[in-house]
Amino acid sequence: MARGRAAGRRDAQQPKVVALGGGHGLSASLAALRRITGDLTAVVTVADDGGSSGRLRDELGVLPPGDLRKALAALCGDDDWGQTWARVIQHRFASRGELHGHAVGNLLIVALWEQLGDPVAALEWVGRLLGAHGRVLPMSAVPLELQAQVRGHDPARPHETTTVRGQATVALTPGEVLSVHVVPQDPPAVPQAVEAVLDADWVVLGPGSWFSSVIPHLLVPELLQALTETRARRVLSLNLAPQPGETEGFSPQRHLEVLARHAPKLAFDVVLADEAAVPDRDSLNDAAARLGGRVELAPVAAPDGAPKHDPELLAAAYDRIFRMHGRIGPWR
Amino acid sequence: MARGRAAGRRDAQQPKVVALGGGHGLSASLAALRRITGDLTAVVTVADDGGSSGRLRDELGVLPPGDLRKALAALCGDDDWGQTWARVIQHRFASRGELHGHAVGNLLIVALWEQLGDPVAALEWVGRLLGAHGRVLPMSAVPLELQAQVRGHDPARPHETTTVRGQATVALTPGEVLSVHVVPQDPPAVPQAVEAVLDADWVVLGPGSWFSSVIPHLLVPELLQALTETRARRVLSLNLAPQPGETEGFSPQRHLEVLARHAPKLAFDVVLADEAAVPDRDSLNDAAARLGGRVELAPVAAPDGAPKHDPELLAAAYDRIFRMHGRIGPWR
Repeated sequence: MARGRAAGRRDAQQPKVVALGGGHGLSASLAALRRITGDLTAVVTVADDGGSSGRLRDELGVLPPGDLRKALAALCGDDDWGQTWARVIQHRFASRGELHGHAVGNLLIVALWEQLGDPVAALEWVGRLLGAHGRVLPMSAVPLELQAQVRGHDPARPHETTTVRGQATVALTPGEVLSVHVVPQDPPAVPQAVEAVLDADWVVLGPGSWFSSVIPHLLVPELLQALTETRARRVLSLNLAPQPGETEGFSPQRHLEVLARHAPKLAFDVVLADEAAVPDRDSLNDAAARLGGRVELAPVAAPDGAPKHDPELLAAAYDRIFRMHGRIGPWR
Repeated sequence: MARGRAAGRRDAQQPKVVALGGGHGLSASLAALRRITGDLTAVVTVADDGGSSGRLRDELGVLPPGDLRKALAALCGDDDWGQTWARVIQHRFASRGELHGHAVGNLLIVALWEQLGDPVAALEWVGRLLGAHGRVLPMSAVPLELQAQVRGHDPARPHETTTVRGQATVALTPGEVLSVHVVPQDPPAVPQAVEAVLDADWVVLGPGSWFSSVIPHLLVPELLQALTETRARRVLSLNLAPQPGETEGFSPQRHLEVLARHAPKLAFDVVLADEAAVPDRDSLNDAAARLGGRVELAPVAAPDGAPKHDPELLAAAYDRIFRMHGRIGPWR
């Protein structure tokens, strides 16, 4: 069936890349990576409990589809067909009624889940609809609740550490997030995600909401094991700015430290950061070295000054890293 | 773009057919007609105000999409691609929440309307998604309210004639429907529907809910004019049984009489009925003659005895009619 087949070229010359994350950060990473490889797999968090996704979880007991939808849209075909369907799945109803705020792609993904009974196959169907340049997989087939240990979640008790439940609440806490975990604990990974990580040439973690989109991948034991054992090179792709709520006031090196606290044995080959977002290079170099890797600085922010990655610049940075640190390179 | 192109074969040898109606009756007609022509256009009523369609009209001010969705599903491609997407657009959410009862295809059609701003183009996109064997058009781009003059709508006043508003209410009235009209009166037709009727070799009206899916087409002046002026042959395809509420106790000939009362100048070449549904052939012959046509009897009901058309049998009946009464035939 030529119609609807995923348009990603697979080519022995192209690196096999797995990008892990969620939300806008993952979309930015995918928009960059699709420019430099035809063998791309996205692995997406499933802990969202806010907005349209949260309502669908509550009402229908399904995985939160929103981050999966965003990743699929980021991979849509370049032609009128792919672009139009991407716009349609990203379309949100606006009304004073029951549909207000629902994204159409969320409803479509859930319908495919209910019809096909297989979360991975259903996403493949949406990928084919979009002519997607790559695959999108949930990290787990079980919807997860994110919980965080937060100091000062209640501003009246700034020194008290409490457990805050739910990604939407964690993302907006006025307190300091110390650590996160998921419920149920030790969720099973989606086998295809584990295989993709083990089979990859490169895995890219981040950018994205640190505690709610990046670190959750390390809380799925089989996925963490695959990330630890894979022969792939590992890139940690940093954010352009701390995120109010989640990582308010965090330095780049502190991002590395909290991540290492959740996965002490996981090493990275490269930590990618935007030069302008690194006030203290030595500290970041030291933190990267403790993860087993080194820092690559590159201008990856959008030229308009918004704290957003520019897809072309991020693609150029990844491409340079992949070429410099390839299998034949100095790193192994 | 080969992908997603409508799969209907257009062939100078095949009759150009336009089927008008709504709901399950139109789906039955389309399921039959797609077997005998590759040049098929469905023209669909837009007066539904019940169920998922009614909620979408109320909430978003759009055309009711349900009958359009059903027609598209009836035309879906034969391959795994078309069949799967047809199942998805027909999928209904079941829950205790806000999505309960919504058909996914309704939501998708509405999203395309909102994105593209063109009701006809949006339906073409869904048709391409399904690999549909034909086109589906709304009869009007304006959502309509069906109103009926009903005798005895209030069972306590069996002889009083009142105006009953809304298709869902009319369909269930315990009284006797005398006539229907639409609000706004004299709505504009969709130009492509008018063109299709004028350009057709055959137009087929019905089967379907007589007052809410069949007669409304005659209440759109430009469409009635096209039906009257077209050089196409006209078939009126009767129901297998009276419909509780709308046409309780109506004989086949009474169906013809009430239709003629709404469009006195419209002639038909053929009235198709199932033999077993015609208790009095002479009366039906007389009524058909008053419409300018003759009755063709054929076994078109499902063999299991349910009052449903069998697509193969209905296709065979249409095929025989098209061959017997073709342009070169005895009728003109």
